[in-house]
Amino acid sequence: MSDLTLAPELSVSQWLNTPRPFSIAGLRGKVIFLHSFQLLCPGCVAESLPQVRRIERIFANTDLQVIGLHTVFEHHEAMTPTVLKAFIHEYRLTSPIGVDQADGQSDIPVTMRRYGFRGTPSSVLIGRDGAILHHAFGVEDDIALGARIGMALAAPVPAATPDENAEGCVAGICAAPAGAA
Amino acid sequence: MSDLTLAPELSVSQWLNTPRPFSIAGLRGKVIFLHSFQLLCPGCVAESLPQVRRIERIFANTDLQVIGLHTVFEHHEAMTPTVLKAFIHEYRLTSPIGVDQADGQSDIPVTMRRYGFRGTPSSVLIGRDGAILHHAFGVEDDIALGARIGMALAAPVPAATPDENAEGCVAGICAAPAGAA
Amino acid sequence: MSDLTLAPELSVSQWLNTPRPFSIAGLRGKVIFLHSFQLLCPGCVAESLPQVRRIERIFANTDLQVIGLHTVFEHHEAMTPTVLKAFIHEYRLTSPIGVDQADGQSDIPVTMRRYGFRGTPSSVLIGRDGAILHHAFGVEDDIALGARIGMALAAPVPAATPDENAEGCVAGICAAPAGAA
Amino acid sequence: MSDLTLAPELSVSQWLNTPRPFSIAGLRGKVIFLHSFQLLCPGCVAESLPQVRRIERIFANTDLQVIGLHTVFEHHEAMTPTVLKAFIHEYRLTSPIGVDQADGQSDIPVTMRRYGFRGTPSSVLIGRDGAILHHAFGVEDDIALGARIGMALAAPVPAATPDENAEGCVAGICAAPAGAA
Repeated sequence: MSDLTLAPELSVSQWLNTPRPFSIAGLRGKVIFLHSFQLLCPGCVAESLPQVRRIERIFANTDLQVIGLHTVFEHHEAMTPTVLKAFIHEYRLTSPIGVDQADGQSDIPVTMRRYGFRGTPSSVLIGRDGAILHHAFGVEDDIALGARIGMALAAPVPAATPDENAEGCVAGICAAPAGAA
Repeated sequence: MSDLTLAPELSVSQWLNTPRPFSIAGLRGKVIFLHSFQLLCPGCVAESLPQVRRIERIFANTDLQVIGLHTVFEHHEAMTPTVLKAFIHEYRLTSPIGVDQADGQSDIPVTMRRYGFRGTPSSVLIGRDGAILHHAFGVEDDIALGARIGMALAAPVPAATPDENAEGCVAGICAAPAGAA
Repeated sequence: MSDLTLAPELSVSQWLNTPRPFSIAGLRGKVIFLHSFQLLCPGCVAESLPQVRRIERIFANTDLQVIGLHTVFEHHEAMTPTVLKAFIHEYRLTSPIGVDQADGQSDIPVTMRRYGFRGTPSSVLIGRDGAILHHAFGVEDDIALGARIGMALAAPVPAATPDENAEGCVAGICAAPAGAA
Repeated sequence: MSDLTLAPELSVSQWLNTPRPFSIAGLRGKVIFLHSFQLLCPGCVAESLPQVRRIERIFANTDLQVIGLHTVFEHHEAMTPTVLKAFIHEYRLTSPIGVDQADGQSDIPVTMRRYGFRGTPSSVLIGRDGAILHHAFGVEDDIALGARIGMALAAPVPAATPDENAEGCVAGICAAPAGAA
């Protein structure tokens, strides 16, 4: 694995649906499905968010971690955290959702730029070793997506070294060992 | 036809997608499909608004008038006209949409209460004589909806009397004669 | 109405789902939805036959008469009446279905040729006066189809003349007056 | 792995879509998706066969082997090999399909009884070691199905012993080594 494929860290201004922040480093050892959306994006509402709910249900008893990222890059005046909270309530979204950190100089928020998302919906699948396994723009076929997540979950959990363990704690919060979730 | 079935007038604080206001009285002689929605209502976004677009396309060459009514009765802080404008842009809605007049004392806006809508999505079909032909809560079957509109359009255009013509002008704006649209 | 648009008569070798034969002449005064299918036609099975079931349900209390026509023009060795009977049982089709009369010299059966059907699924809507109101190849939009049937049902029932009445009786069977169904 | 979970052998009277017969033993080392259907089964036609086509497309470059089994247990007079051939042509099915061997004394064909299929559609997923990994009656969620196949493909290919190799050749035909397809 080259460092070039390592998933960049999240930059989030506000977390919803969770009492604690999440980080890529803190989830090392788990598989992560990170999906990027905007609440006024028709394809997100009609297709990718329902798919996320199916993923949550089907992998509920695995150590897959689903994380949503609200990557507002247009209509900033409309897609505020206040509106996002009402949206989450009406659409009954349950997994943790981070508001991508606005960039003072660009319409594109910070994490979206780091990951190179071309628009919404986008998603990345991150393996137990922190590498990006797949990067998608648009909605993918359910069977192909299921197969990728299944293969990622089948990978062995990497042995933790003391140093890695240290990195596993972020902002005073440490990830549970893989397999404990 | 009893007066009890006459469609009540609209009370709208702001019109979008149209340079001029619309009124039920001003449309006398035409068939009206009035649909009520909220931008954060999942059933509206997933089902009733796509159905409205199908209606607009299929009856484009008839004198059916489609009118949307944004009847916000919850999450008032989130579903503001600013957000509605972005929503209309993203979802490419093209027929006239009125913001239902807020009621200072109740969460239910004025027109919604007049029509007795129980929630969103709701719709009413109004005949050429101004009578309510059908009242629906939820999304209806396309074939049944098409049949009702087809039957309403097949009804003869009522002869206008001078008085009725006078009523056809509202707020300084007069509706085109039925059949001219 | 020109005679050129009059619906041609059916030529059926076997009727299923009905104890008595049907004819276009015998249904004068009613609206007829005649749909043509083959049991091994994927578009018929996936789309047009489910649409026919919706039509049957929605217009159950009107005098619309739905008639199916099994117009086999390929795989004649496979789509026999024996297989059609099992198909009707498994797919729970309930309206009368006629087996289109095979033509000894052509693959195209007799009624299919008379109507000029280009393939399956096809359908025609026949008005109360026996005229073809609409001719479709492929599956149509539900709203448009509902509107056409609604408009056809809204047409006045033509006054019967003694001669027309006589034509209304076919093979010893007379159609009920329109509106009685 | 207990012998109880080993996939039973196929008993097929006729193969379609393939010049050579297939066997479970001859595919040892590969993952097998075996799906059971009847051509007049509405759920098979509407849901499971389209899902099979998606599986074929998505796993085209893996060593997953898809096999269809026509398990006729009703309407035997209608669902003959002649009709099945026309069905395969119209529905453009491309993976190998075996006609399950009729049982002279029971309506249930031989392989269907061996596998304990309760009806159609049914399917089993068979691992590289010949064990049944999953048994389904009805159509499953695409994501869950994709995950199971992905995990099965991620399993290591078992080392072949000379004896196992011998069993790998059936009817004079030997399976290619896993990974070669």
